[in-house]
Amino acid sequence: MKLIKGSVTSPAGFLASAVSCGIKRSGREDLALIYSENPCNVAGVFTTNRIKSGSVILSMERVKKGVSQAVIVNSGNANCCVGERELKDAKEITSELAKELKIDPEHVLFCSTGIIGRPLPVEKIKKAIPILLGKLSNRNGHRFAKAIMTTDTVQKEIAIEIDILGHTVILAGTVKGAGMIHPKMATMLAFFTTDASIENSCLRSAFKEAVQYSFNRISVDGDMSTNDTALIFANGMAGNPLIKEGSPSYRIFSKALRFVAEELAKKIVLDGEGATKFIEVNIKGARTEKEAEVIARRIANSNLVKTMIAGGDPNWGRIAAAAGSSGARIDQKKMDIYFDRIIVMKNGRGIERNRKELIDIFRNKEINITVDLKSGRNVFRIWTCDLTSEYVKINAEYET
Amino acid sequence: MKLIKGSVTSPAGFLASAVSCGIKRSGREDLALIYSENPCNVAGVFTTNRIKSGSVILSMERVKKGVSQAVIVNSGNANCCVGERELKDAKEITSELAKELKIDPEHVLFCSTGIIGRPLPVEKIKKAIPILLGKLSNRNGHRFAKAIMTTDTVQKEIAIEIDILGHTVILAGTVKGAGMIHPKMATMLAFFTTDASIENSCLRSAFKEAVQYSFNRISVDGDMSTNDTALIFANGMAGNPLIKEGSPSYRIFSKALRFVAEELAKKIVLDGEGATKFIEVNIKGARTEKEAEVIARRIANSNLVKTMIAGGDPNWGRIAAAAGSSGARIDQKKMDIYFDRIIVMKNGRGIERNRKELIDIFRNKEINITVDLKSGRNVFRIWTCDLTSEYVKINAEYET
Repeated sequence: MKLIKGSVTSPAGFLASAVSCGIKRSGREDLALIYSENPCNVAGVFTTNRIKSGSVILSMERVKKGVSQAVIVNSGNANCCVGERELKDAKEITSELAKELKIDPEHVLFCSTGIIGRPLPVEKIKKAIPILLGKLSNRNGHRFAKAIMTTDTVQKEIAIEIDILGHTVILAGTVKGAGMIHPKMATMLAFFTTDASIENSCLRSAFKEAVQYSFNRISVDGDMSTNDTALIFANGMAGNPLIKEGSPSYRIFSKALRFVAEELAKKIVLDGEGATKFIEVNIKGARTEKEAEVIARRIANSNLVKTMIAGGDPNWGRIAAAAGSSGARIDQKKMDIYFDRIIVMKNGRGIERNRKELIDIFRNKEINITVDLKSGRNVFRIWTCDLTSEYVKINAEYET
Repeated sequence: MKLIKGSVTSPAGFLASAVSCGIKRSGREDLALIYSENPCNVAGVFTTNRIKSGSVILSMERVKKGVSQAVIVNSGNANCCVGERELKDAKEITSELAKELKIDPEHVLFCSTGIIGRPLPVEKIKKAIPILLGKLSNRNGHRFAKAIMTTDTVQKEIAIEIDILGHTVILAGTVKGAGMIHPKMATMLAFFTTDASIENSCLRSAFKEAVQYSFNRISVDGDMSTNDTALIFANGMAGNPLIKEGSPSYRIFSKALRFVAEELAKKIVLDGEGATKFIEVNIKGARTEKEAEVIARRIANSNLVKTMIAGGDPNWGRIAAAAGSSGARIDQKKMDIYFDRIIVMKNGRGIERNRKELIDIFRNKEINITVDLKSGRNVFRIWTCDLTSEYVKINAEYET
């Protein structure tokens, strides 16, 4: 596995494009496209919010069929809570794109991110489609990554090369997301491209697992969007022998995919709204994985833990209190808490530490919190960031 | 029911006292006492955090027996996560107090609030007990309310008079709490006193219900403390005929108690760390009360909803997204959202409003959010406050 300088257009046969169609007031690019020269095997993971954007509903339906060739993305408008026209608008836009590309409309997906409750400017988008197509290029991956941003401060992308039985396969991804996210901008969108030749069922299972260990294990503010979508397109153009379930090639591919997804998830946390610190919360020694997860999520979503880290004060009592309030049946007398490798609570009881040593840990950009329950063998890990005044400012001072 | 100017020493036979024993660095009073001339029927509700202060464990045990005559409270130290000495220290302090008061040690309760992980200064506290007793007076209720404060900016107390079969009964309460709370200060303590003569089982059921509809329905930051305690003492000195289960007197008493508890709960929210707004979230039309509760809590704990209100921007999309992510089986097509009486989303779809009219609502100190699911007859109400940069500052800039 080799990291390369690249983008979603690094795998063979993928082109991208972006234009400004007038959704973002700033005039920045807000309509973007990934297109593959060949139809792709596709897999997707979508928000579990009961309130879903029409764009999500359309893409969910189409991804089920397993084949796709293009995805069009608008940033600045969520296409959500505007009634029946959400789905109608999504169909109209993707049909228009399919007509121009001369491909099956069912092979076109649609993602939206931005403000909730405003109708999409369909005519503006349709008018921009020919310009979008005119700019399609295999050098536009970075441009795509930039056009899908909302409150993100940096574009987030990664590309790697792997070897599948002597064939070089490229796997790339990009993601947007910084809070739940933008004030009213929802939220996380992730796009993966690969030229691997891979069975559809394999692609689905590898992608599901990769998302499980990456995007489903981060939290910026505990808020879940109506538009979260992660998609992977595999067009087979690397010419490798087909990757099949249970094979060594499958293991190489799925490991690489998980790496790419985890790196992108980290980038979201590092670019979290107002964030200054990256926090890894590890729960060890839990009776069940579910128990470990409940505790990890409670700690990672505790405003008191997150403000403590923003303030650089090693006040482990807040971690104990958050864990204790998670609902998990913790045995306090067995519980240990660590900052990095320094133990601060042992068997439910505080340990006198050199305060300077702890404050030094809190000066680092990355901080590890470990809670060992010593009650079993199950573990869970989650990534989050600190909660700063800047987060409040970003989310309070935005004007609709 | 009549509101009177008063405190926990307004009911007949209750005395209070407070001193500075050196726990708070500021030198403010940090050791306080309520004492009743007669033994009282007592009821209590305690934190459900798995990590509990030794003070909570001691008081829980003693409250079970139903009789109590005094409660001593220290502020500035939680007596939590310091090992077996927590309970030992609590016993030692209450025994010393009982000896001086010449009452049964089992009739003395103990509450602590403050930093987690530091041993109580037992000797300092014991030394202060004679001074504390020397100051006992029926005019010291306000002083008690002040001595139990940590990050609270105002003292919170209320007293009312009710008529029970021609006898005037006084019911009073005080509470401390502003966040989970103080950086490392845990957290909510509530003390109720009454001179009512009431059966023990009645007192318990009325108190449980009052706490259920008040303190269990507020949220400042979603964090739960290791020390939460609410206690009620009834000494019978009003001389009213004994209040029995199911009687009209019981209904008068329990209604009054619920009123007092709700008023104190509101005071906590209004004094929430950094808070500038009081927010009432009402869920209507839910299939079950549990479903209504899950949605109400999700909205009340959403940082995005709370920062939106801090910013004064009527962005209802965040409320829809929070409700949708609660896990409840919402039918978006039936869902309505209101700010005060103004509908902003109807049947899952945004409604064009005069923006000025909404912004005016957001200028008020109190804001009502109603979500009507139109799927049943169940309701739930919760009170919370906005999330401001000041909250982050208070919790990040505190130094242990």
